[in-house]
Amino acid sequence: MSIPQKKLTIGLFGFGVVGTGLYTVLQQTPSLNAEIKQVCIKHPEKKRSAPESLFTTDATALLEDAEINVIVELIDDADAAYHIVKHALTAGKAVVSANKKMIAEHLQELLDLQAKYNVPFLYESACCASIPVVRNLEEYYDNDLLQSISGIVNGSTNFILTRVFQDKIGFDEALLHAQAEGFAESNPVLDVEGIDAVNKLSILLNHAYGIVANPKKIVHTGIQNLDSHDATFAKEKGYEIKLVAQAKKLDNGEVAAFVLPQFIDPTNQLYNVRNEYNGVIIESGFADKQFFYGKGAGSLPTASAVLSDISALRYDYKYEYKKLHSSNRPVLTNDFLLRVYVRFEGLFQVPHERFERIEEWSSSEKRCYVIGVIKFNKLVDNNWWKKKGTSLVVLPDAFADGVEEKESVAEELLAVV
Amino acid sequence: MSIPQKKLTIGLFGFGVVGTGLYTVLQQTPSLNAEIKQVCIKHPEKKRSAPESLFTTDATALLEDAEINVIVELIDDADAAYHIVKHALTAGKAVVSANKKMIAEHLQELLDLQAKYNVPFLYESACCASIPVVRNLEEYYDNDLLQSISGIVNGSTNFILTRVFQDKIGFDEALLHAQAEGFAESNPVLDVEGIDAVNKLSILLNHAYGIVANPKKIVHTGIQNLDSHDATFAKEKGYEIKLVAQAKKLDNGEVAAFVLPQFIDPTNQLYNVRNEYNGVIIESGFADKQFFYGKGAGSLPTASAVLSDISALRYDYKYEYKKLHSSNRPVLTNDFLLRVYVRFEGLFQVPHERFERIEEWSSSEKRCYVIGVIKFNKLVDNNWWKKKGTSLVVLPDAFADGVEEKESVAEELLAVV
Repeated sequence: MSIPQKKLTIGLFGFGVVGTGLYTVLQQTPSLNAEIKQVCIKHPEKKRSAPESLFTTDATALLEDAEINVIVELIDDADAAYHIVKHALTAGKAVVSANKKMIAEHLQELLDLQAKYNVPFLYESACCASIPVVRNLEEYYDNDLLQSISGIVNGSTNFILTRVFQDKIGFDEALLHAQAEGFAESNPVLDVEGIDAVNKLSILLNHAYGIVANPKKIVHTGIQNLDSHDATFAKEKGYEIKLVAQAKKLDNGEVAAFVLPQFIDPTNQLYNVRNEYNGVIIESGFADKQFFYGKGAGSLPTASAVLSDISALRYDYKYEYKKLHSSNRPVLTNDFLLRVYVRFEGLFQVPHERFERIEEWSSSEKRCYVIGVIKFNKLVDNNWWKKKGTSLVVLPDAFADGVEEKESVAEELLAVV
Repeated sequence: MSIPQKKLTIGLFGFGVVGTGLYTVLQQTPSLNAEIKQVCIKHPEKKRSAPESLFTTDATALLEDAEINVIVELIDDADAAYHIVKHALTAGKAVVSANKKMIAEHLQELLDLQAKYNVPFLYESACCASIPVVRNLEEYYDNDLLQSISGIVNGSTNFILTRVFQDKIGFDEALLHAQAEGFAESNPVLDVEGIDAVNKLSILLNHAYGIVANPKKIVHTGIQNLDSHDATFAKEKGYEIKLVAQAKKLDNGEVAAFVLPQFIDPTNQLYNVRNEYNGVIIESGFADKQFFYGKGAGSLPTASAVLSDISALRYDYKYEYKKLHSSNRPVLTNDFLLRVYVRFEGLFQVPHERFERIEEWSSSEKRCYVIGVIKFNKLVDNNWWKKKGTSLVVLPDAFADGVEEKESVAEELLAVV
């Protein structure tokens, strides 16, 4: 018995390090039964490690070639990527993309296009590069017992935070290191301000809970306001700070979601996720906590995920978005309480009116901070906590206080048996 | 748009803690569209937390009920399980099983039955309980770039080793602890001697490489011969000992596979896998190392995997065994060199004729050991290394010496780009 495999004829957009690697592997691995027919590039004058006849600058040549049944899109420009993907899906071609920004910002439309033209659109590499988190949420955690996802999904900021905590250097210096090592863009705003992470969270929310949310509407920040006082506080308590993308089903069945810096204690699996690595904890009814770890940035891990998507297309795999079509799809909420640390400037400027309850505050000439419980809604309505000189970091037992946690199915079961 | 979901009518074998939990969750989760119609049990006199009408002792009543389209088999007895599964598949019913021993020992026949009757047979819970390793090998790492799998797949032995290294107690005492905590059977031979682990490795080999191997033919041992001298040696070198199931593609494309105790250094992700947890490292061409971690033993993690399998049946999911049907399926080999530590008894009894090369030996009245390179074949031919008083532990860079490692695709690519 042999499983029928589709012959894939690929039109590739972009021939950077990921595209080049992909080309090499597909050539060396005939068993994949996939061939790159043509590559669309922007700069024909660059020297390439492939025959000249492979290249074109004419996107339409690929998109309207009836023989090409798969478009692989590996370009930086999110707007150009959007038009390529839209054109390809409309033309009935399967698409593989790594562009999280483009996918997150056009999620609803891309879902509609897939449904309308009934073509696969795969993008495992857009979330955590080599970690198969999209596929696992889609296929394995496909029932409604998923309690939370919590992950380090941006390699650049994690590299910076690792330098701050391991090498005990300042945030500015750490950013320079990250840039020198190629782990941060020369304009690092997308990474450092949490935009890349919230784009990924938006994609994950769809596969985890069937929620389609504009990333701009999800509360997020990055590590841009953290400073050495925050690092010192963390070290005193035995924590590290990580930028965490989190989604959690609350007691009422609604879902809380945000990207915020968090204090992580050593018992948390995310504590040991360092440098450019990513890690994701998935908590579900029975399985307790599961942890997925792997390289979250870099050309090869990205190529790995792209290759797995291409490989899946041989068997006509597509995301079924089961949770999106489920009758009891949960909704996002901002109506919950969160335990946070807020550092502020001005010795007598305790922002107490922001808090429902204050557990601790400390004001000295060196540093001022408050620990307490806030209404999450107050972060949505107002950007006071993002202002320069203020930093907000989520505490380890963020939901424990004042918010009743959903009694876990595990506990319910233990009561039964 | 709504995805068509099959209504599942389940016949359940076994109503222990996993079965009971499953029953509860399915009752509480109508969206799963799955109902347990009848439960076959062995001891009708036991008090059960479900209506009496649900139970029967007549297996045929379930297996020949045309309305039942799914058999979930959660019994201990591997022989009885085999007959149930065979009967069910032959009758065209989908089957979910957690019985690794039964699956590993009857793998070829079960593959044939699935092919012949074209019915799904899912068994995610049989390997590493809650960690979706079978599904990921099957679906995500489905090309031929998989370099190695290396995992802690038995929770009981890992619990014992954790006690030895963390609590600094002896192996015998640690086993008693494990039994007291319910992590080891009263007859712990299956766990302690590595039989459970090699059963799981046999299942993983199929999904990783398309190799069907009788677990009895795979070199394996457990932790039964380890003693405090081995633990002391490990601590001196900064290692811990773990029982590791490993499969690795060698330079020539053939696959080495074994279950042996290994010295693990702190840079290895398996180092931090403790107690009843399992962890699996999957190394593939591009993605570098990926690590999956979760609870590998216990009723709830097992139930979690069973539930995911049931959930997948709603969409008629089945393993496609793509690698089994691939034209370039690798074969198992015992023809390779391995770096090991061997502790032996008898001051002047250095087993030097077993080694190709000896790197270090130490003989004193307290302990005698050799470190060197052996031909793996010599472990297959002869059981000298399993004798009482002798222990063999694989060293961290096991394949590095004398065995050329396959140049990784990643390196090849870096050379290209």
